[in-house]
Amino acid sequence: MLKLFYAPKTCALATHIALIDAGANYELARLDFGAEEQRKPEYLEVNPKGRVPALVTERGPLTETPALLAYIAQRFPEAALAPLGDPFAFAEVQAFNSYLCATVHVAHAHGRRGYRWVDEPEAIAAMQRKLPASVTACFELIEHKMLRGPWVMGESYTICDPYLFTVATWLEGDGVDISKLPRVIEHRERMAQRESVRQALAEQAS
Amino acid sequence: MLKLFYAPKTCALATHIALIDAGANYELARLDFGAEEQRKPEYLEVNPKGRVPALVTERGPLTETPALLAYIAQRFPEAALAPLGDPFAFAEVQAFNSYLCATVHVAHAHGRRGYRWVDEPEAIAAMQRKLPASVTACFELIEHKMLRGPWVMGESYTICDPYLFTVATWLEGDGVDISKLPRVIEHRERMAQRESVRQALAEQAS
Repeated sequence: MLKLFYAPKTCALATHIALIDAGANYELARLDFGAEEQRKPEYLEVNPKGRVPALVTERGPLTETPALLAYIAQRFPEAALAPLGDPFAFAEVQAFNSYLCATVHVAHAHGRRGYRWVDEPEAIAAMQRKLPASVTACFELIEHKMLRGPWVMGESYTICDPYLFTVATWLEGDGVDISKLPRVIEHRERMAQRESVRQALAEQAS
Repeated sequence: MLKLFYAPKTCALATHIALIDAGANYELARLDFGAEEQRKPEYLEVNPKGRVPALVTERGPLTETPALLAYIAQRFPEAALAPLGDPFAFAEVQAFNSYLCATVHVAHAHGRRGYRWVDEPEAIAAMQRKLPASVTACFELIEHKMLRGPWVMGESYTICDPYLFTVATWLEGDGVDISKLPRVIEHRERMAQRESVRQALAEQAS
C-alpha cells in the first residue's frame, strides 16, 4: 500500500490525481501546515526536506513531484500515463514537469514562501509585487509554446496533465489575469471534469 | 548527432559530462551569455525559455537538466548511468536531481538572477545577503541526509553525480564555508579526477 503525505492546496494534488489515474491502492496522510506538522521530527524522518508530497512505498519514501509522477507511470504501466518505451517522448514529458517544478512552482512560491530567499519584510513585499508578472510570464510560455492540446502532450493524457492542472489552480490567487490564458484555462476546466480530479479534490476536502 | 547548447559555468556542464560518460557522439554549441545570445530569436527557436542547456536530437530539442540526464541514461543503457529497470531506484535518482534543479539551483540563482523575482535593487541586495545561508542549508541536507557515498546513490555512479559536481562548483562563489561540507567536497574532488569531467571542463575552456 502506498501512502501519500499531502497538504491541501499544495502541489501534492498532482501526485494524488495520478495515483487515482493509475488505479493505485493508496492511503492519504494529511499534514497540517498551520501547525507546522511538516517540520516535526516524525515527518522529517519521512522527508528531511520538510515538504510535501512524500510517497511512502514498500521500499521507503520518495519525494519530488516530477520523480513521483514518473514513478507512478512506471509502476503502473497499464495505465499508460507516459510514453515509457520512447526515451525522447518520455524526456519531453519530464522536461515539461521539470519546468513546472523548477520555474513555475518556484515563481509561485515567491508569493508566500519568500522567507526562503530573503530575511527583510521589504524584500518579501517586493517579491509579492512582482508575483503576478513573473507567474504570468511562465504561463504565457505554456499557453503559446508548450501546451499542445487537448492534453499537454497532444492527443494522449499523461502525467503532465494533473501537474499543470494543479499549478493552474493557483493562478487567481497569484493575481494573474486568466483572460490571457484561454488554452490553459480550457485545459483546467477539462481536467476539473475528470473523475480522478473530482475524487482527489473531494478526498482532500473531506 | 546530438548537439548540446551550453554556456560555461552553467548547469549545462552536468549534461555535458553525462554525454561523455555515456560514450555519446555529440557536438557543442556555446552561447555567449555576455552578449545575451540565449535571448536571440535563433536560440529561442531551439529553446523558447531562453536558457541552457538544450540538447538537439534527431527528433527535436529537449531541455531541463533532470530530463536530459534521464534521457541520456535511457538512450545509452549500456553505460549503466541509472537503475533503468527499477522504478523505485530510478525515482530516487530523479528525486535527487529534482532537488538539485528546483531547490539548490534555485537558491543559487538568487545570487545573480534575482531580477526574475523582484524589480527593486534593494530586494536584489537582500537576496544576495541571504545567499550563503540558503545555499549552505541546501548543501547541509545533501551532506547529512542525501549523499550516500562514495557516489550519490552509493556504490554505483549515476546521473546524479555529474549534476551534484556541477552545482558544487558554485559553492565558493556563493560564499559557502565548504569546511562544513567534507563529504560533498570529497565527492567533488573525486569527480574532478574522472576523465569525463576533465574532458568536459577542457572542452568548455577551449
